[in-house]
Amino acid sequence: MNKKEVLMGNVIVGQSGGPTAVINSSLAGVFTKSKELGLGKVYGMRHGIQGFLDGRYIDLDPIFSDPINIELLKRTPSSYLRSCRYKLPAVEKGNEIYEKLFRRLKSLNIKYFFYIGGNDSMDTISKMSDYAHLIGSDIRFVGIPKTIDNDLAITDHTPGFGSAAKYVAVTTKEVIQDAGVYDMKMITVIEIMGRNAGWLTGAAALVNGPDCDGVDLLYLPELPFDTAQCLKDVKALLKKKDSIIIAVSEGVIEKEGMNLLEESSDSVRVDAFGHKSLSGMGRCIADYLGKEIGCKTRYVEYSSIQRSASHITSKTDINEALQCGRDAVKVAYNGGSGKMITLKRVSNDPYACITEDHDVHEIANLEKKVPRAWINKKGNFVTNEFLDYVRPLISGEYLPVFRKGIPVHILMPKE
Amino acid sequence: MNKKEVLMGNVIVGQSGGPTAVINSSLAGVFTKSKELGLGKVYGMRHGIQGFLDGRYIDLDPIFSDPINIELLKRTPSSYLRSCRYKLPAVEKGNEIYEKLFRRLKSLNIKYFFYIGGNDSMDTISKMSDYAHLIGSDIRFVGIPKTIDNDLAITDHTPGFGSAAKYVAVTTKEVIQDAGVYDMKMITVIEIMGRNAGWLTGAAALVNGPDCDGVDLLYLPELPFDTAQCLKDVKALLKKKDSIIIAVSEGVIEKEGMNLLEESSDSVRVDAFGHKSLSGMGRCIADYLGKEIGCKTRYVEYSSIQRSASHITSKTDINEALQCGRDAVKVAYNGGSGKMITLKRVSNDPYACITEDHDVHEIANLEKKVPRAWINKKGNFVTNEFLDYVRPLISGEYLPVFRKGIPVHILMPKE
Repeated sequence: MNKKEVLMGNVIVGQSGGPTAVINSSLAGVFTKSKELGLGKVYGMRHGIQGFLDGRYIDLDPIFSDPINIELLKRTPSSYLRSCRYKLPAVEKGNEIYEKLFRRLKSLNIKYFFYIGGNDSMDTISKMSDYAHLIGSDIRFVGIPKTIDNDLAITDHTPGFGSAAKYVAVTTKEVIQDAGVYDMKMITVIEIMGRNAGWLTGAAALVNGPDCDGVDLLYLPELPFDTAQCLKDVKALLKKKDSIIIAVSEGVIEKEGMNLLEESSDSVRVDAFGHKSLSGMGRCIADYLGKEIGCKTRYVEYSSIQRSASHITSKTDINEALQCGRDAVKVAYNGGSGKMITLKRVSNDPYACITEDHDVHEIANLEKKVPRAWINKKGNFVTNEFLDYVRPLISGEYLPVFRKGIPVHILMPKE
Repeated sequence: MNKKEVLMGNVIVGQSGGPTAVINSSLAGVFTKSKELGLGKVYGMRHGIQGFLDGRYIDLDPIFSDPINIELLKRTPSSYLRSCRYKLPAVEKGNEIYEKLFRRLKSLNIKYFFYIGGNDSMDTISKMSDYAHLIGSDIRFVGIPKTIDNDLAITDHTPGFGSAAKYVAVTTKEVIQDAGVYDMKMITVIEIMGRNAGWLTGAAALVNGPDCDGVDLLYLPELPFDTAQCLKDVKALLKKKDSIIIAVSEGVIEKEGMNLLEESSDSVRVDAFGHKSLSGMGRCIADYLGKEIGCKTRYVEYSSIQRSASHITSKTDINEALQCGRDAVKVAYNGGSGKMITLKRVSNDPYACITEDHDVHEIANLEKKVPRAWINKKGNFVTNEFLDYVRPLISGEYLPVFRKGIPVHILMPKE
């Protein structure tokens, strides 16, 4: 261990939960700011806290002392350090695990611990900082928000959402163009990620405008899905136009007592235990409408592409993700712990946003849903307030480095 | 009709078959070259020859005399003029239809007829030029190739393929990054368009390289799908790595006599007539492997997005599509008819390609498949020759015009 590492202490950073297109920008922010502040080594946990528990980590200094690799990192989707879905036990029940973790942290002389993730990851920061407090450790724990779902509390929005929303908007516009080419009636149902919160699905409505026929109906998981009303609305729309576009969150659930979808679905899947389940609400809705109306339907699922599409990220999002990473280091450097970096919008038009930090205990495990007031009365579209909120977050483009026609990524060295 | 229109004759152009990201560039080429050569008005058929038969067309001059609109057109995916899937009757049997069509052409003083499309569209050019010959009409008919499937004969490749291949490569690389984040075994099956020809699926292999864990297995419709062998191969791969990536053409068919997929599928769909069918080969293969191996599977379908992703087009492809449109006008202007523009690769590295024209009768209704020699012996990957052939076609990027974070498109005025 050199002098700086001993004096200043080392840094460790992990990534957790589902990938995004910009989670690596936050990692780049943590690395660069740590170096600017003269901190010691920067380690990365392999596969988050779970991997670290097993002693899996990597020294990031030799890789990211090359600024080219920082640039590639910012353009590489998914989690460079790989991820986990691991929940720490309650502090009072997990002595053995916490002891092991803190022993590992001590052996690497870690003074700064950063974790980039969503609700569950903030739970990790919350518990680790609690345990540190309990044992009188001076290691500082700061969380960096990340999730395409945009469902974290307190923060205005989350890094990762803007780029996913941009992907959804850009792709939806293209799907609409594609769907309208034949002189026939067709219903396209697009399924978008979001189990409990409809932020990302709502972003599909950004395309509606003079140069796009637009999304016609939009269903978020915040409200029960009224299958019968949807059928009525689609029938009415088909009298006015040929190509109907429906965007639906993967997490929508049919209104209680209404079993129209399951009854009519072609796509009932049977698992190994013989349990029936609907395979994709979008497909079920498309099947149902097709049968009832007797017209062609198409089902499009954006699947994992929407969260890792680093070739079409929002520059605003990339920059904010980076800034959150940098400011997490600043907060920890100044003595903060048990905090998460939050984004605060100070102006919408022109858009301006600053970072703050907030007690992570008030954020962990909570979910921020789309407010009822931002969904229209009929429950089948978002309001202008919703769109005004999302629009600045998708603004600006951040270009990949292309080699032979394909974006260049950076991979973590194998163990 | 003004003097120029009378003297030089007018132009009509149509688009037909499935959309691509660059079919509008060919349209831009037809328009700009027609104007450069001093031809008369340029009309567009609405919904191809079928719409034109019903008297549906549009005067393109007022729109595309504005060069900004030409630029937007080149960046707008899908068919600006909308499309059809209409096959003309045999020349000897369709007198009434041909008479009607030629009456319409005459009433607009059309001297030049262009049709942008695939196999079926070239059938239209072939029949129209035959009929013109029969009745002694001097109208010239020239076809412009278009199809993401790359399955047209004679031409080295088809406009539309390069951009779709680029989308497939870019997205596959991101899907692979996304699939590898958790510390667990997972099989991802990606389904790519291509009913009879595997060109586009093969393009997924372009990502294999030092910065990508790569596609592991790749199945084209040119060969029967050996489900049992695939299972064996996946099992062997899982001993060496965690995340297995399989790319499969939508059109692959299980080897004769082997019914493993249908027997095991959760995704048997039942149509209105009670017929069972497999809903997506990719999903069936994922279901089957998941059950047999007992690990997590993911199914990703690129669906219509892959053919209309104008936000990530190949510059090479855009330029060639434009050039094919321009050269079709040149050929017709010089007296050619019953021709299709073809691309001829004169050098691979550095890549250079010229256009030629070819008798459309030798192209219409034929399909060019991936040669057996470009698929490996085991039938589960493509060879380097295949990759060398595709690589230049995805090269270069062509950027959209963004407004508020979303690409700007241009829409045909409503009727």
